[in-house]
Formats: sequence, C-alpha cells, structure tokens
Amino acid sequence: MRVNAYAAPAAGQPLAPTTVERRAVGPHDVLIEIGYVGICHSDIHTVAGDWGPQPYPLTPGHEIVGTVAEVGTEVGTYHVGDQVGVGCMVNSCGECVNCLRGEQQFCLNGTVFTYGSTDRDGTTTQGGYSTHVVVDASFVLSVPESLDPAHAAPLLCAGVTTYNPLKHWGAGPGKQVAVVGLGGLGHMAVKLAHAMGAEVTVLSQSLRKKDDGLRLGADHYYATSDADTFTRLAGRFDIIINTVSAGIDVNAYLGLLNLGGAIVNLGAAPGPMPVNGMLLAGHKSVTGSMIGGIPVTQEMLNFCGEHGVGAEVEIISADQINDAYQRVLASDVRYRFVIDAATFA
Amino acid sequence: MRVNAYAAPAAGQPLAPTTVERRAVGPHDVLIEIGYVGICHSDIHTVAGDWGPQPYPLTPGHEIVGTVAEVGTEVGTYHVGDQVGVGCMVNSCGECVNCLRGEQQFCLNGTVFTYGSTDRDGTTTQGGYSTHVVVDASFVLSVPESLDPAHAAPLLCAGVTTYNPLKHWGAGPGKQVAVVGLGGLGHMAVKLAHAMGAEVTVLSQSLRKKDDGLRLGADHYYATSDADTFTRLAGRFDIIINTVSAGIDVNAYLGLLNLGGAIVNLGAAPGPMPVNGMLLAGHKSVTGSMIGGIPVTQEMLNFCGEHGVGAEVEIISADQINDAYQRVLASDVRYRFVIDAATFA
Repeated sequence: MRVNAYAAPAAGQPLAPTTVERRAVGPHDVLIEIGYVGICHSDIHTVAGDWGPQPYPLTPGHEIVGTVAEVGTEVGTYHVGDQVGVGCMVNSCGECVNCLRGEQQFCLNGTVFTYGSTDRDGTTTQGGYSTHVVVDASFVLSVPESLDPAHAAPLLCAGVTTYNPLKHWGAGPGKQVAVVGLGGLGHMAVKLAHAMGAEVTVLSQSLRKKDDGLRLGADHYYATSDADTFTRLAGRFDIIINTVSAGIDVNAYLGLLNLGGAIVNLGAAPGPMPVNGMLLAGHKSVTGSMIGGIPVTQEMLNFCGEHGVGAEVEIISADQINDAYQRVLASDVRYRFVIDAATFA
Repeated sequence: MRVNAYAAPAAGQPLAPTTVERRAVGPHDVLIEIGYVGICHSDIHTVAGDWGPQPYPLTPGHEIVGTVAEVGTEVGTYHVGDQVGVGCMVNSCGECVNCLRGEQQFCLNGTVFTYGSTDRDGTTTQGGYSTHVVVDASFVLSVPESLDPAHAAPLLCAGVTTYNPLKHWGAGPGKQVAVVGLGGLGHMAVKLAHAMGAEVTVLSQSLRKKDDGLRLGADHYYATSDADTFTRLAGRFDIIINTVSAGIDVNAYLGLLNLGGAIVNLGAAPGPMPVNGMLLAGHKSVTGSMIGGIPVTQEMLNFCGEHGVGAEVEIISADQINDAYQRVLASDVRYRFVIDAATFA
C-alpha cells in the first residue's frame, strides 16, 4: 500500500510531500496508524547527507507513536487499538550474540534502522514522517496508555538514549548526575534522572534556560562559561551525561567526576577526543552509549508511564517541517518538535 | 635512629649506600625490619627525575615486606614477629571523603607516599631500599604467613595496581580478561585474573614470552604485531588491562571490547590519548586506575594468601640495584627484581 509521507528528494533539499510504499501486513507484522512523530537532530543530519550517502528519496522519522490498525496472523502481543511506538530500529538478525541479549542496535549482521537501511527483504526502510508504517511486532513497543502520544514520541529515541546510560551507570537515590547541554536529549536526561531519584545538575553554556532546567527537575544549574564552575564542582558527579555534539574539553569534565564516575558521550563529536590518561585514575570512565535495545526501550516506556515522564514538545504540522529543521539547527526549540501525523494525510 | 639504605644522591645518578633517619616509634607506629623490597618501574622514573624534581638524596622502594620489630603503645593490630607489608603510601589526612571510604591514594589533603613525600610531621619520606622503616599502623598491611616474603613484596604495588581494577570491573568466572603487556604489572594481572576465575588472554607485541604467559595462567596468547589479532578477537573482552606505558592505539583496542567492556590504562602514557568517541557506544569505557586504598590492598593480600599467588621474582643484593635498573629499562626481567634487604646492612 502507498501512504502519504514527507521525504527529502536528494541531499540538502527541503522535504516535500510524497508517498511511500508499505509492505502488506505479514504474519509477524503490525500496521500502525501514526499519531505523532518526533524530529530528531539525526533526521536532519541524515537527510542532509552529513553522515554519508543516503538512498533518496528518503523519509526520515524514528520517534513514532501511533495506534495499531492491523496485526498479522502470528502476532499475539498487540491488538487493534493499542497505543504503540517504533524507535530507531525495525529489524535485526535475531540470532547473533548481541541480538540474543537484547542489544539489537549492535546486531553483528547489521541492524535495520527505521529509515535509510536495507531491510532483510531487500527493500529500503522509510521512516515515520508518514501516516502509516508496517513493522515486525518484535520491534514494536507498547506505549502506556497513560502517556500522551505527542509527548511520548520523543521517548522512542531521545528517551531511551538517555535512560539507557543512566540505568547502566546506576543513576538513582544518592547519586549525583550532571547533564551537559539542555536540548532535546538533555531535557530528557534531566527528567529521567530526576524521576530515578538522583540529584541532578545541568551544566549549560549559559544560564539562559535555568528556569526551565529547574522546572524540568534539575536541582542545580551552572554555566560552563564560568570557569569557577569547574573548581566549585570538582569531584562532584557519579555520572555526567554529555549531550553536546560539538567537541567538549573532556579532561575538564573528568575533573568533575567522583571516583568511579563516568562521563557518557551521547553526541557525535567530530574527530577524536584527546583524553589525558592520568585523569582516569580512580576508575573514572570516558564512555558512550547509542540508543538502546528493545528490552531497555520497553523498560524505559514503562518507567515513563509509571512516573508520568514525557518530552516537552512543540507540535507542528507537516508543512512546517523545513522551518522546524532550521530552528533545531539554531537550537530554537524547547525541547522537541513533534509532527502531528494527521497532517500528512 | 639511622639505618642503612641506598639512595640516589641526585637526579640521574646511580644509587649508593647511605643511611636514612627513621623516627622514634610513636604510639601508633610500627617498626618493621625489612625482609625484601621490590624494584618498581616508578622507582626508576622517580629517582631519574623523569616525573619532576625530587628531594634528594632519595631512597626509593614501595614494595616492602618484613617483620614487625616493635609496636607503639596504642597499636593493637600488629605484634612483634608478624609478617607485614608497606605499599606506596604511609599516611593521609584520614578525614576527607576519599580517606573515609578507604581510597587514601586520592586523599584530598595530599596522600603521603612512601618516598619523596612530605609527611604530616614535615619530614621527607624515605622508602624501603633500607633495613628498617617506621610506619603508622593504619598504613601497614598484614601479609599472610603462607606467602613467601620475597614473592609477596611486589604485591604491595604491582599486585594491588592490577587487583583493584580487575575487582572493580568484575573479573571472575565467565569473564574475558585481556592483559596488554607481560611485564611486572602484566604478569600479576595474568595471575590474579586467572585466580579470580576469568578466562585470560595475553596481548603482547610478540610471542616471545608465550610459554611464560601460559604457565602463569593465561588461556590464550596473541601477538599485537599481527594485525589478524585485532580482527580475530573483535568484541571478545569484558576487561582489558593495559600495562604498557608507551602510548597504544586505544581505538584499536576498543574494537576488542565486548559491550559494556572497559580498557583500564595502568601505564603512564605520555601525552593525550586520541579516543574516537563513536567507538565508545555500547557502554564501552576508557578508564584508569592507580594502586588502591588500604582496604583493597589488604583484601588483595588475603586473596593472594588464599590462592597462593605471588610475583615471579629475581632476588638481588643491594649492590646490584643499578644494574637491575638498566635491565628493567631494557625489559630484561622476569618479572620483578626484589632486593634482599639483609644486604643493606
């Protein structure tokens, strides 16, 4: 079936209305009527060709929440009308050691990402800037009905990207978590770390968003442009979640870590980070994380349902996508654009 | 009291016989008659002035095992005749957050190291290349009587330096541990990881020491000069203990880590490590470790007593120290020189 969508016709060109083909619902598939789809920074980089050649025309979108419209004959986990989501992946081999432990984003035979990937049937995946999508049930997530779908959509990427390292490194009561940068990822990290019970500090270039940060759940807010910040907070943090994609001076941030602490890099910084090995003494880690597997994504959604955590969003219509891209690039969004998928129709 | 010792008269000069002053045994002190003292690579760097100016004449030595000869009036933990050890530290403030959690090597008010440090009474500490030493009982370790003192001496630095990160990162049954470099630190890492129940692989420049490595407890031994090693072992290791002090290509080793794995840098590599942040995805860590606090040092000694783990040593007399230094610099020792302290007399 062909469904309405928005796609980039070629690298660097604005997105425009089009249609994409969705496969017939197979025995293990779920047809989802999309309600909302988030705009992730990586959508913008990908369609612009910043991360290498893409199979154009390309429909981005991997923060998808919608409603089950049809299920395949073998699907027992979902039923028509269920609120569900799809994140950054729609398939993997299911057999390698990483898939078997639920880390499908590191499938050794090649994760099939939600758009721009070659699916296991040879077709090119097309993302969620669209009215409908067909996805293998094992890559469909249950979205708690208590969550508003527009606010839930960004959880499928920004939510799990921040939840996964917070959980891995033990964020919780008695732990000090710093979040570097208060954007799409950063604001989710603040909300999630706060909901986990950690004491949360935002480290942002300026104090411009301080009121927002405190409202979202931060206990403290410091400007990294103030050199005093790095002496005042020396040795403070168990976990630093770095959401800034521009390179940061990782050695300065190592000075903020407590013994055994970790700085988790989520941004895709250009070029290598020069790490001073002496600053790692005391089991301090420079580490990274990339989205999360299906099990931890479902765990995150359940956690958000229990704690009423959703993203701060600005809902737009399809014809505003290109303007929204410009505003994301200018950091002019608090904190995630979400497209009302009804406007693709 | 003045006791016989060997000291470097100035930076870069050979060590020569001398005497050093030891304080009178205070109420909390232990007088130790030294049996054996190991030669650590850092002794050589320090007396050479490689790590900055030193208070010469300087007596190095921080891998000390001996026998209690006298205890202060308030010391209840040790008795005359006990086999004891002293490692890299002899004092700290005891009050800061790091001391309170037993991480005295990170004392916020300044760890007093075993030689070349200013002690809390204002004197300069002098190390264990000597017949006797007086140390606060809280920095004296109990060395299980089952351990041979010559083989136990290197445990006080090389042992805890490798035990500490192996324990922190969970070495044990079912875990894959790689040890990069089979020298003083590396051979201890192999023995300890093997005793902990991990599967152990040595990654060495060549296969020259392969027989030794397997005899010490390694299950596998690969040459890093063979590029195939890095493809064959991709994703294999939970923990990589890097004992090489020359800079290594950390990004190549990141490819050998399993998800959640850590590469622990123990060597003091010159200059910053250029880390490719993309390779850290999957909670992979670049981290470091520096000796260990008093509690983990005691735990390590008890572990070694239970498992019969000691260093492989070559016992020398005091007049061989300068030759031994040259051989250490040429990597010509299997695997630690230990000085018979009776020869200082």
